[in-house]
Amino acid sequence: MELKVGVVGATGIAGQQFLTALDQHPWFKVEVLASSPRSAGKTYEDALKTQEGRINWWQNEPIPKRFKSMVLKQAKDIDTSALDLIFTAVESDAAKELEPIFAKDIPTISTASAYRMEDDVPLLIPGINSEQMSLIAHQQEKRGWKGFIVPIPNCTTYGLASSLAPIDREYGVKGVIMTSLQATSGAGRNGGVLSLDMIDNLVPYIPGEEAKVEKETQKILGSLGGGVSVTPADFGVSCTCTRVPVTDGHTETVFVATEKPVDIENLKKAYADFNTGLKELPSAPESLFTVHEDPFHPQPRIDRDKDGGMSTHIGRMRIDNVMGGVKFVMLSHNTKAGAAKGAILVAEELVIKGIIRSN
Amino acid sequence: MELKVGVVGATGIAGQQFLTALDQHPWFKVEVLASSPRSAGKTYEDALKTQEGRINWWQNEPIPKRFKSMVLKQAKDIDTSALDLIFTAVESDAAKELEPIFAKDIPTISTASAYRMEDDVPLLIPGINSEQMSLIAHQQEKRGWKGFIVPIPNCTTYGLASSLAPIDREYGVKGVIMTSLQATSGAGRNGGVLSLDMIDNLVPYIPGEEAKVEKETQKILGSLGGGVSVTPADFGVSCTCTRVPVTDGHTETVFVATEKPVDIENLKKAYADFNTGLKELPSAPESLFTVHEDPFHPQPRIDRDKDGGMSTHIGRMRIDNVMGGVKFVMLSHNTKAGAAKGAILVAEELVIKGIIRSN
Amino acid sequence: MELKVGVVGATGIAGQQFLTALDQHPWFKVEVLASSPRSAGKTYEDALKTQEGRINWWQNEPIPKRFKSMVLKQAKDIDTSALDLIFTAVESDAAKELEPIFAKDIPTISTASAYRMEDDVPLLIPGINSEQMSLIAHQQEKRGWKGFIVPIPNCTTYGLASSLAPIDREYGVKGVIMTSLQATSGAGRNGGVLSLDMIDNLVPYIPGEEAKVEKETQKILGSLGGGVSVTPADFGVSCTCTRVPVTDGHTETVFVATEKPVDIENLKKAYADFNTGLKELPSAPESLFTVHEDPFHPQPRIDRDKDGGMSTHIGRMRIDNVMGGVKFVMLSHNTKAGAAKGAILVAEELVIKGIIRSN
Amino acid sequence: MELKVGVVGATGIAGQQFLTALDQHPWFKVEVLASSPRSAGKTYEDALKTQEGRINWWQNEPIPKRFKSMVLKQAKDIDTSALDLIFTAVESDAAKELEPIFAKDIPTISTASAYRMEDDVPLLIPGINSEQMSLIAHQQEKRGWKGFIVPIPNCTTYGLASSLAPIDREYGVKGVIMTSLQATSGAGRNGGVLSLDMIDNLVPYIPGEEAKVEKETQKILGSLGGGVSVTPADFGVSCTCTRVPVTDGHTETVFVATEKPVDIENLKKAYADFNTGLKELPSAPESLFTVHEDPFHPQPRIDRDKDGGMSTHIGRMRIDNVMGGVKFVMLSHNTKAGAAKGAILVAEELVIKGIIRSN
Repeated sequence: MELKVGVVGATGIAGQQFLTALDQHPWFKVEVLASSPRSAGKTYEDALKTQEGRINWWQNEPIPKRFKSMVLKQAKDIDTSALDLIFTAVESDAAKELEPIFAKDIPTISTASAYRMEDDVPLLIPGINSEQMSLIAHQQEKRGWKGFIVPIPNCTTYGLASSLAPIDREYGVKGVIMTSLQATSGAGRNGGVLSLDMIDNLVPYIPGEEAKVEKETQKILGSLGGGVSVTPADFGVSCTCTRVPVTDGHTETVFVATEKPVDIENLKKAYADFNTGLKELPSAPESLFTVHEDPFHPQPRIDRDKDGGMSTHIGRMRIDNVMGGVKFVMLSHNTKAGAAKGAILVAEELVIKGIIRSN
Repeated sequence: MELKVGVVGATGIAGQQFLTALDQHPWFKVEVLASSPRSAGKTYEDALKTQEGRINWWQNEPIPKRFKSMVLKQAKDIDTSALDLIFTAVESDAAKELEPIFAKDIPTISTASAYRMEDDVPLLIPGINSEQMSLIAHQQEKRGWKGFIVPIPNCTTYGLASSLAPIDREYGVKGVIMTSLQATSGAGRNGGVLSLDMIDNLVPYIPGEEAKVEKETQKILGSLGGGVSVTPADFGVSCTCTRVPVTDGHTETVFVATEKPVDIENLKKAYADFNTGLKELPSAPESLFTVHEDPFHPQPRIDRDKDGGMSTHIGRMRIDNVMGGVKFVMLSHNTKAGAAKGAILVAEELVIKGIIRSN
Repeated sequence: MELKVGVVGATGIAGQQFLTALDQHPWFKVEVLASSPRSAGKTYEDALKTQEGRINWWQNEPIPKRFKSMVLKQAKDIDTSALDLIFTAVESDAAKELEPIFAKDIPTISTASAYRMEDDVPLLIPGINSEQMSLIAHQQEKRGWKGFIVPIPNCTTYGLASSLAPIDREYGVKGVIMTSLQATSGAGRNGGVLSLDMIDNLVPYIPGEEAKVEKETQKILGSLGGGVSVTPADFGVSCTCTRVPVTDGHTETVFVATEKPVDIENLKKAYADFNTGLKELPSAPESLFTVHEDPFHPQPRIDRDKDGGMSTHIGRMRIDNVMGGVKFVMLSHNTKAGAAKGAILVAEELVIKGIIRSN
Repeated sequence: MELKVGVVGATGIAGQQFLTALDQHPWFKVEVLASSPRSAGKTYEDALKTQEGRINWWQNEPIPKRFKSMVLKQAKDIDTSALDLIFTAVESDAAKELEPIFAKDIPTISTASAYRMEDDVPLLIPGINSEQMSLIAHQQEKRGWKGFIVPIPNCTTYGLASSLAPIDREYGVKGVIMTSLQATSGAGRNGGVLSLDMIDNLVPYIPGEEAKVEKETQKILGSLGGGVSVTPADFGVSCTCTRVPVTDGHTETVFVATEKPVDIENLKKAYADFNTGLKELPSAPESLFTVHEDPFHPQPRIDRDKDGGMSTHIGRMRIDNVMGGVKFVMLSHNTKAGAAKGAILVAEELVIKGIIRSN
């Protein structure tokens, strides 16, 4: 099996992550790269070069050779009939406009927030809420599309919603208080976080982030209302999102009120044994959760890249008597599991479920 | 008025903060410096020099000239009869042993944790719980001391307990969830935090810290039980304490459940107008609380030193629907308000209340 | 004496430094603030606010009260007849166009690079090369201006040229190798250095910087050719300029070949005793050079702010046998001595020399 | 072929790097782990655990499974007759005492500085000065040893000496000025660099480092005097070594005076084509040098790990008119190429040359 793939927003930081992750992918073959009109017509390598001689490639891995000479298309000029699937890695405004154009014809997996909260759009974390996939057929029917849009959650939501799922199954979540210590890569490089704000400093605010995390978490852990929309989970989520001097890896301190009293050892076991049923997917981690017994972990620089950056790390699990439940520290990789690689994993799951197919 | 003062632990980082803050103090004159046996007998300046040529002085202000040539005593050899007051800045183990020796004769104000939770020992934040001073007479009577021990709270407790006080007065605190993002100066330099742990990283655990903050906060905001001990506040406090790459200034995200619904504008006013009755004290800030309207603040590097490092900064005040109350971000200076300068402010209050007097 | 002053580029980071330094200045009274057309007509305070609620003020000191309500002018609309002096803090392109307009009428002291290398323009460091002031009369005559332009050097040049002056006087400089470890504040906030480039990282290139430092240093330490231009110093200067994760304070390692053999103790004395003849100027440091005996210093965070950020720190002075001369480490404050406060010091010197006068 | 290997100092940071690099090594099989008397007798995993629950393992890769249950020996108790080779990763004092004990019987490859400057000890960089191997036979004869000691150079020397070799061959080196911007991992964790010194700061001094780099570089690039010692290269090396907030990867700015004028393009080609003759060694990089055309590189976080951390990165190559030669920026990985992996590469070269053999 080999599916033909396009990557839109290929020169940006998220687009580069897609290319790095897709370079040797066993199922997906990148056939088309698209970018802004300014870069269209240039080779990928030329489009990354600035007048100062800088090469705007920010991955630790070198630029995959086969992409260097590919000529960038303008996003609107993509011939969807030659592709099986599109990954988009553009800002929300551009996504709003472009994604329906692609989705009319082919599956469109997106890192943008534009369509996350639409009724007929699932917000998938493979192995956590795969049942929301059933919205796709409804979406296609309602909108008259041959393809569809599936966005992945915000990178901060990703880890929170994942880590709440085992607690919800075992003990019932009643309320969540979360403080995030977010990496600066989340803000990208255009208008990204300045070093002056991140040396001997932190910033206790990320515009728009908290509301996204609160609503997306409720949607991800909600229930399917008759297959046409998600009824949000009925527990409240309250967040304070901060930016700290870390390049990659969002750390979150989580306090959870539960319906039933938590048994710490049992819960650790639930994480360690959590079965996604998806281990065989090329981008899936060996285990979705890594439980740390060393109380000084998880730490972003040390732990984020383990298992390909696709594992969600759980540490410092303790009973919480104020919430009436449990508290812990969570880490997930915001630019791997929470971005391009996470989107690829979603696509992989849709492939094995038969929802994405070769044209 | 001029009171004769000794500083114990004078060569350590907290001792240096005492000397910097006391150098030009209008009331307190440092007469004796004491340190470990290893340094005793040396001048202060010589004791700071290492074999490699390093001068172990870590304040931004230069070493005050008059201390350079003072000869260090061993702590046990201090003649308390020549002093009115002792400030101690030593580790908890040393404090446990030394402080009662001093307190037999003279007031002993301490940054150490050794006696904070003793029944007959007040845990004072000037203007917040000054009524606990009444324990001092009881302590003297019970222990048969002419002096007494008054410790200041842990530097993380300091800001939390302060910032909860106006909420408690106006709306009644029912429960508190707090996540700290603590500066590395809190760990000092002996066994301090390694740079390898604080570059592109954070550490989600500080041994012993959370329990201290939880219990001390309840004591500070507790009520006096007949003048012989403090009945801890009956609300729960639950913390996750983390270390982040910041030199000075502890940031805390706080979520508070309240008895009565909070009105945000009214609460901001309560902070801004908070009257400690202590503005005239030499080390007191112009206002105990600084309320930030810019949601990107407080930020440690930018805000910590305002008002001499003695103001507690409150930002991002919002209603919290999960706790049923209010959430906000707080910043206070861990090595100024939360350490030496905070201890000096306590001494100043005890002076104007007539509890510390010239011999 | 009180001179009426305008500040152009008042909302930028360098402009803010001017306002902070001028707020309580005993000689200069700010009468006019100017900025880009976009902000003109707004009060200073309003111009700093963004839609997100951010207040774009980046000094540790609060916004001086008297500037908050001043209404910003567009730079071109400034009435120079009401002023005695203008400070400009704008980008080089804007400076190129605006400064001659002001200089036609009044003295214009600039932090921009636009006119630094013009023949009839002195590049002044007070106490180092004050004799270049004599170019001002020539500049006025040649250009038919009542005022004049005096730029200050690049912030990296400032410390290098200053620290070479005593060596040149005592031993004769024959060649200079310099590596800078520059703070990120030098790049400002518009297009400033991203945190992603400064966490666990450094960048070994600053476009255009090395050529500036090499040529400006030769001009500053050159000789006056008959009062109409500067003959550059005949020693070579070779630099590698790097950016490191420090907010303020440029560190430079300097290796100098000299005509005569260097005596280290004598040279240290030459620095310590260096007489600028300008101590009485309001912005002058107590001593232009601070010599460190502790080999672990100078360090940017610890030393930069001493003496108001106006002292140049010299450490690790050693004989260098490869160059045949001396090597040392130097630190100067790039946004104080090397920017606004440095420009104000230049203006102060021109005032006491009678070159800037009340209209 | 499989050689039996012991690792001494196995619990320290350098020891851990050895274990990580040796875990899957095709030639070397670790049979014995040794450590300080305090840990001897414990399993490797137990020895890493602290009372606080911390697991003192600092590699990004997990602890290799097969080492976890190995019981640590005391270094002096190692039975050398069961081994073919020992790697030592201990402090210089311990190395001084232990290494001759091992070397009496078997080859001992060391990261310590204790024997680097001994006359009969080669200081090897594979592919750069392999001819120094001939000292080994002389060392064995002179000392009456069956084994021998071969230390690797200091991690800062490693990159400098490597990068000078092609220049020396092509143009003749006459003198070297170097400034290092060193990572904090070089100082290890016992008495390592404190975060308080590396946040918004740098330290311009590393005790003892400059003298080591200057002398070792001359030895590495020296000539064999009749096979019994190395005549140091006759060019001078002058360094200023600084510590910057980077975890791994030493950056060095290098200015070189040459006998013959340098042609930049030719020199770049010399680096790119540099043939070590050792590509087939398991730990060798694809190419010893990586030449960067993007002037913003090399950057430590981005480039250090390329090619397994074993490539020396060369950037910003330019003519230098002050030295009369060439200047550039160099980066090498201090804890990979400059430590354990570098030592393993030395051992590999000695194996294929027949100097290390199975017993």
